[in-house]
Amino acid sequence: MSKRNAFYAQSGGVTAVINASAAGVIETARRHRSRIGKVYAGRNGIIGALEEDLIDTSKESAASIRALKHTPAGAFGSCRYKLKGLEESRAQYERLIEVFRAHDIGYFFYNGGNDSADTCLKVSQIAEKLGYPLTAVHVPKTVDNDLAVTDNCPGFGSVAKYVATSMREAAFDVASMAKTSTKVFVLEVMGRHAGWITAAVGMADDADTPIPLVLLFPEIPFDEAAFLAAVDAKTRAHGYCCVGVSEGLQNAEGGLMADAGSKDAFGHAQLGGVGPLIANLVKDRLGYKVHWAVADYLQRAARHIASKTDVEQSYAVGRAAVEYALAGKNAVMAAITRVSDRPYRWKITAAPLSKVANVEKMLPRDFIARDGYGITAKARAYLGPLIKGEAPPPFKDGLPRYVRLKNVPVARKLPGFKV
Amino acid sequence: MSKRNAFYAQSGGVTAVINASAAGVIETARRHRSRIGKVYAGRNGIIGALEEDLIDTSKESAASIRALKHTPAGAFGSCRYKLKGLEESRAQYERLIEVFRAHDIGYFFYNGGNDSADTCLKVSQIAEKLGYPLTAVHVPKTVDNDLAVTDNCPGFGSVAKYVATSMREAAFDVASMAKTSTKVFVLEVMGRHAGWITAAVGMADDADTPIPLVLLFPEIPFDEAAFLAAVDAKTRAHGYCCVGVSEGLQNAEGGLMADAGSKDAFGHAQLGGVGPLIANLVKDRLGYKVHWAVADYLQRAARHIASKTDVEQSYAVGRAAVEYALAGKNAVMAAITRVSDRPYRWKITAAPLSKVANVEKMLPRDFIARDGYGITAKARAYLGPLIKGEAPPPFKDGLPRYVRLKNVPVARKLPGFKV
Repeated sequence: MSKRNAFYAQSGGVTAVINASAAGVIETARRHRSRIGKVYAGRNGIIGALEEDLIDTSKESAASIRALKHTPAGAFGSCRYKLKGLEESRAQYERLIEVFRAHDIGYFFYNGGNDSADTCLKVSQIAEKLGYPLTAVHVPKTVDNDLAVTDNCPGFGSVAKYVATSMREAAFDVASMAKTSTKVFVLEVMGRHAGWITAAVGMADDADTPIPLVLLFPEIPFDEAAFLAAVDAKTRAHGYCCVGVSEGLQNAEGGLMADAGSKDAFGHAQLGGVGPLIANLVKDRLGYKVHWAVADYLQRAARHIASKTDVEQSYAVGRAAVEYALAGKNAVMAAITRVSDRPYRWKITAAPLSKVANVEKMLPRDFIARDGYGITAKARAYLGPLIKGEAPPPFKDGLPRYVRLKNVPVARKLPGFKV
Repeated sequence: MSKRNAFYAQSGGVTAVINASAAGVIETARRHRSRIGKVYAGRNGIIGALEEDLIDTSKESAASIRALKHTPAGAFGSCRYKLKGLEESRAQYERLIEVFRAHDIGYFFYNGGNDSADTCLKVSQIAEKLGYPLTAVHVPKTVDNDLAVTDNCPGFGSVAKYVATSMREAAFDVASMAKTSTKVFVLEVMGRHAGWITAAVGMADDADTPIPLVLLFPEIPFDEAAFLAAVDAKTRAHGYCCVGVSEGLQNAEGGLMADAGSKDAFGHAQLGGVGPLIANLVKDRLGYKVHWAVADYLQRAARHIASKTDVEQSYAVGRAAVEYALAGKNAVMAAITRVSDRPYRWKITAAPLSKVANVEKMLPRDFIARDGYGITAKARAYLGPLIKGEAPPPFKDGLPRYVRLKNVPVARKLPGFKV
């Protein structure tokens, strides 16, 4: 079989461990030099392919690629740019194939969430239609943990560990201060539609260190009176209360509680601000002194407190993607399959992209406590293994030492293309 | 010399390492059983003394006290309760002495910031006035780093490490997304009046990983036009920009940019919200997509990323306080003295409380870059050693394992007292 090049791109919101997947792809490709020539990365994701702005990863040292395993965010740049249907975005899809042909790219590795799974599937379809030989494999990634088929999504476990750790630490703080000062603390977390990250906040509270927690899931419409009653009851009983609220919390009419009106390039509402809103509500109605935090990017970039399980799985899906491609598996995603809970065992399997694309995996109702404000034992059994283990980055002068790649461009061969 | 008991209390906002000071006090007292009987802690700080709500720390195991070294926040509870002048709050001061007398307390260790240094001094004065033999030693603590005489304050180094780490991680995130999404990221940090924590954000940017940063110090009145120009210039040059803003940022008239109008028990304005304010300004005026985070308590509770230097110094000031008391040094603070920068060497010295109380140490102007938006080499030389070294807590099931004490009450001997 002839030797062909590979293309790798990062898509959508980045995570603390997406670069570990990149390392998995690149290191595995380097171990198969007889079959894979160079790995080109898209500068700023798929836009790099459309603009023929490719990065030659062969210019990076083995040490730099290894350092991606402990470096957060997207080393080649990511983007929020969604290719639409094959007919609607025909020019884009054809341009992709044109660029792939110009650079003899036979393997397409797309590292992202729902939207990129859909794009990956469509790219494989257009390639087939145009008679261009291409193997397209999706590498899952999303802190939202909402991809179908895979048991969990790389990136989620580290956010989960961050929010649970942060809430536990803040709870210790509030408990110390509650006598004369702050009694209610509100932490706003990510998760547009699915409450996976909100559920992870619930892990802060366990048998060793019980914490009075109230969680506000995007799946449960906000009921002001019931919420205030829950916070008041816990505050009276324990002297303080901690609230974890999803950025995607909805009102009874299904509208976002914190709708700022602005939307991102995918047409998603741009969120943020429900934390202070909930905090002010508690202050006004219950009269308790409140504090609130919005972790925003800190939560998904926090490589310093990444989950070891997450780092290992992120690397494994990158490695498996290359192995699948070499085995001729096309239009699949490298999915994580849970083999057992105790002890936790997992393996990587190839999931058909047709079963993944455009399906959003919501938090099951039986992961949420009956009153809607906590998590169940079932949720704990699911979440527990995903946050397990520490994989700290190297530190230098007191701070994590993250790598920046050289990102050397590949010479263009085609005329320009307006994205 | 007869054996007498000791009293220890935590005051004001807690930190990731104030319990390390508690461990220093208690473990050192336990090593001097011939001179110090029991160490009683005030439940919820000085209020515990006033209400005769004392905790018998001798009921805690050696392992539990050792675990305080890696447990954030105040294990005995803290409070925001300021004793005023000796005349104004005479009844409170006399009550304190009455409680001390009832429990044969000969040593008073007060662990806090400016307000508690003042209280500690006054308690020593009233004791003398009333002819009650008491040795009062202040144990410094404040994330604000604004205590006089001491080179730095226990608690600050860990917040500094947290904010610098968080900003570096967020910067990697924003850099990945900037092509099509967020271009400006704003992180609001603590620091009521002094910009020490804001300066620490500047450490995120160094020679290894340059980051386009704009810092908004409380010492530099906010100049909207100049700020927007600085952000715009950096965003144009680097594709993105990160902003670190102090909660205490002031306008040209000296008013707080984010004054919510509410005040805490010390009469300090309760802050929070300048981060989103600045982010919205950038979005509206420059049109860049923005994201913002408010770390709030997460920054001062983040024991998981504490500075090893800070943990060691926090313990050392607790230990020294007991040693000073046993040596008969009264009305002093266990201060940190910097012996040298490179290599960093420090020692603990006894500073007269009269030189510490009610003096606020501001960030020197020559720590701030000429344009007002960055830090100087002098600031870096000062801050560098304070964030150095890692001292992670033990983890269990993926999360930090923090100790909760039994906090067994001491039987009351006096009639009640209304605080």
